[in-house]
Amino acid sequence: MLEEIRQQPAALERTLRRELAAIKRFKRVIEKRKPRLIVLAARGTSDNAALFGRYLLEITTGIPVSLAAPSVYTLYDVRPDLKDALVVAISQSGESTDINVVLERAREQGALTAGITNEPASSLARLAEHVLLVRAGKEKSVAATKTYTGQLLLFYLLAHALGGAIRKDELERLPGCVEQALRLEPRISGLSERYRFMNHAAAVGRGLNYANAYEFALKLMETCYVVAERFSSADFLHGPIALVERGFPVFAFGPTGVTWAALRGILEKLRELGAETVVFTDAGNREAAGFGRTVRIPCRIPELFTPIPYIIPAQLFAACLASQKGLDPDRPRTLSKVTRTM
Amino acid sequence: MLEEIRQQPAALERTLRRELAAIKRFKRVIEKRKPRLIVLAARGTSDNAALFGRYLLEITTGIPVSLAAPSVYTLYDVRPDLKDALVVAISQSGESTDINVVLERAREQGALTAGITNEPASSLARLAEHVLLVRAGKEKSVAATKTYTGQLLLFYLLAHALGGAIRKDELERLPGCVEQALRLEPRISGLSERYRFMNHAAAVGRGLNYANAYEFALKLMETCYVVAERFSSADFLHGPIALVERGFPVFAFGPTGVTWAALRGILEKLRELGAETVVFTDAGNREAAGFGRTVRIPCRIPELFTPIPYIIPAQLFAACLASQKGLDPDRPRTLSKVTRTM
Repeated sequence: MLEEIRQQPAALERTLRRELAAIKRFKRVIEKRKPRLIVLAARGTSDNAALFGRYLLEITTGIPVSLAAPSVYTLYDVRPDLKDALVVAISQSGESTDINVVLERAREQGALTAGITNEPASSLARLAEHVLLVRAGKEKSVAATKTYTGQLLLFYLLAHALGGAIRKDELERLPGCVEQALRLEPRISGLSERYRFMNHAAAVGRGLNYANAYEFALKLMETCYVVAERFSSADFLHGPIALVERGFPVFAFGPTGVTWAALRGILEKLRELGAETVVFTDAGNREAAGFGRTVRIPCRIPELFTPIPYIIPAQLFAACLASQKGLDPDRPRTLSKVTRTM
Repeated sequence: MLEEIRQQPAALERTLRRELAAIKRFKRVIEKRKPRLIVLAARGTSDNAALFGRYLLEITTGIPVSLAAPSVYTLYDVRPDLKDALVVAISQSGESTDINVVLERAREQGALTAGITNEPASSLARLAEHVLLVRAGKEKSVAATKTYTGQLLLFYLLAHALGGAIRKDELERLPGCVEQALRLEPRISGLSERYRFMNHAAAVGRGLNYANAYEFALKLMETCYVVAERFSSADFLHGPIALVERGFPVFAFGPTGVTWAALRGILEKLRELGAETVVFTDAGNREAAGFGRTVRIPCRIPELFTPIPYIIPAQLFAACLASQKGLDPDRPRTLSKVTRTM
């Protein structure tokens, strides 16, 4: 897992370079078809990437986005009306049975279909009309890391193809930014020791970094067996915050930008309650220091591009904590790399 | 809370009787406007009701449904293209700031708008073109119960207005079915004692009962301070099941019907792992007995209508467990009845 975390700058750089051409062709198709709705279908880590895509695509294109409920297609056998829709399936392996059913049904219904996968020879890649490839190389660890950031990157290309204002030079800075974030490893390794006996936690984020809260919680669950909740900072206030007592551990994704004021609000509340917080933020955010521990991502970047570098210290944290606990994050109990569900 | 749980048959009966007329008018508007997309906006318990609505509306009408991300409107200040959409805001109090912003923006964008609320004089009721009223009477407990089932009921009326095949006689049976489910109180009260020292748990459901897993987890978090995870049975297999060790408590919503086979699959896995499960199911489900404890809802009802009666024993469980723990479920620490977020 640690090795694959460290491969991310190269994987992102390769994916960006190779997929920029593919996205140009897809942009022309989209300009003809003009989808009025985007449906994203995924499970597990890929579903967390889809949650990011849900925000990114709606924010940058104004086209409404829906996260598919696969059981509507597989168990209830319903064919929603998708003829004006772009349906995107996201799966590392491309062999998620129910996600492929959604894709097939969507094509039958006349939707424009696309797939985001790490496996060019997968069923998903065969089923989708347009394929965006995560060029991360084989992912051996059961806990997905480099395919997650690769999927996030491809959502930026997709947003561009759909008419969103995504600056190419900002995208090209991302691999370097991830490289810088990786230098946090010694700091994170030291920090993780404190959490050796943590049994539960909550991860919170807002807007574009909401998906990172889901992904960090999933990593804590699958590699460290921590009962980790995940919330938007707004949803957290609508009930679950009652959980928080003195010392309750909360991890927050708090980049400078439009979501900070909302996040600061919940951090103030958590401070009052005596929670123990770690805030992932940037070097320039002075307010964050007042809320407990901070992990500072050492690159300056607009909020729109923070999700990829911000998940890096969280991935490192999960890998280091698993090691503190004497667990093997590459082979979590009960799980296998490809999960098939209907 | 217990008192309000017990008021549900009367509240549902009253809501159904009074809102059937309102929905007829709304049905005519919908037949003219023919929405091609439905967007649901809510927070907290109302958002769990929206999650149910997301499945019910797509399953019964085939119109794609999206759960709104309020921050897209409030923090990112984006106006998604919603002119062919029906946008429904759901809020018990009708005073959820961000949800009302979504509604206002949707109207400006030319969407057809509706509101589901318990408060006829609320901001939400003023902002929405069409209002469906939960006639549950004042909800005093911070933990919402009777407004949740009222919201679920109104989603059936909305599905009918949108052309879904919802049988009126089945709806009319629901208050009686809830009455029968309430007779489980002594059984649930006895069962809850066992969980006095439970610190964490997971609630799982699938399809139409997926929302109940969310709602039960929220009730456990806000009234019993249990760190309760919520998953679809499929998502649980994609990673989080690694959490489960011998004795890990899992609560599953498992009515007979199209979702049972998928749920049985995860129950088999949980049995292998030595988890301690409670299955909410019906009297006729013989297979459920093999998976640990069962709570049998004593009315026969098609799977489409199970979500309302199935949440009843879960609400009772949360109220009884809070009492076992010496907590006051009407006034959870940190929370107030109306939460305003942006």
